[in-house]
Amino acid sequence: MSDSLSERLKAEVTAPLQRFKKGSIIQKAGDLKTHAIYVKSGVLRSYVLDSNGKEHIYMFATEDWVIGDIEAMEYQQPAHLYIDCLEDAEVYIMEKDAFFSADMPKAQIISNLPYLFRRIGRLQRRVLMLMGSPAIDRYRYFLELYPELPNRIPQKMIASYLGIMPQTLSTLRSKIAEEA
Amino acid sequence: MSDSLSERLKAEVTAPLQRFKKGSIIQKAGDLKTHAIYVKSGVLRSYVLDSNGKEHIYMFATEDWVIGDIEAMEYQQPAHLYIDCLEDAEVYIMEKDAFFSADMPKAQIISNLPYLFRRIGRLQRRVLMLMGSPAIDRYRYFLELYPELPNRIPQKMIASYLGIMPQTLSTLRSKIAEEA
Repeated sequence: MSDSLSERLKAEVTAPLQRFKKGSIIQKAGDLKTHAIYVKSGVLRSYVLDSNGKEHIYMFATEDWVIGDIEAMEYQQPAHLYIDCLEDAEVYIMEKDAFFSADMPKAQIISNLPYLFRRIGRLQRRVLMLMGSPAIDRYRYFLELYPELPNRIPQKMIASYLGIMPQTLSTLRSKIAEEA
Repeated sequence: MSDSLSERLKAEVTAPLQRFKKGSIIQKAGDLKTHAIYVKSGVLRSYVLDSNGKEHIYMFATEDWVIGDIEAMEYQQPAHLYIDCLEDAEVYIMEKDAFFSADMPKAQIISNLPYLFRRIGRLQRRVLMLMGSPAIDRYRYFLELYPELPNRIPQKMIASYLGIMPQTLSTLRSKIAEEA
């Protein structure tokens, strides 16, 4: 089942389309205002830096995904996440209520709800995998979620998302290639 | 900010109140039908068993929390999570759409939405902490989220939720007690 949003998630896109070059940082940890970023083209990622300055990748967003910092948005905190562009990108930078606002018809709100439930479901899986799943299962789930990303982003970023060492990822890839 | 739901999350409670004894299992991994369980009293937890039979605790739910298996529910999969009672409990076992249904007034749907956004925000924090935060930060966040739980559940379950060894938790507790 695809998590692609274009057909399903209807937003009031009043924001202008914005273009960013690969490497651009759209949000920094500590920013006081956070947004929901709808990706029209390109690849974005969000990540944190831990107290040792190490990056941990929270998520990737490709065409038709929405990326943001929902914790900061919902609890009115400064941003926790950095968000940057791994490819040249076209995005709409929107307020949270672009997807769920009292001004919308009820039917539209109802039709956008599965997006939130699925996000929770995906995060449930991510937590459970981080806690107890072998690295190969996590990588398989990554491939299911982001089938085209291995060709678009550096391997070390996939390893960071999975919480494993780049060498481990390389071993997993060989193993999966042998099975195919 | 509290995550307590009673005032905020309005459900169509048509389900009967059910009572379970401490130790009762309400859902098993593999169950074909999953539910949203609203806790009126007691403590419930959800967990998975990994391929070595080790328990990993996904979440706890006390008074006014809702616990369930949203991944299974949303993707029509058999349950991944076990849900059991850590204290005698009174619960309402409901369908997902008890909280968000097209039959509800729009205002009620809108007023229930923050529950989903907060759940996503909490899960975002959980993922980021599992990836890169020191154990003491995770424990402090646990105390913020579940202030009264340390007196109600075994320490080893808190350790399992945090993804640390029980001995490590014991050291953290002493450290925090010294600071107080």
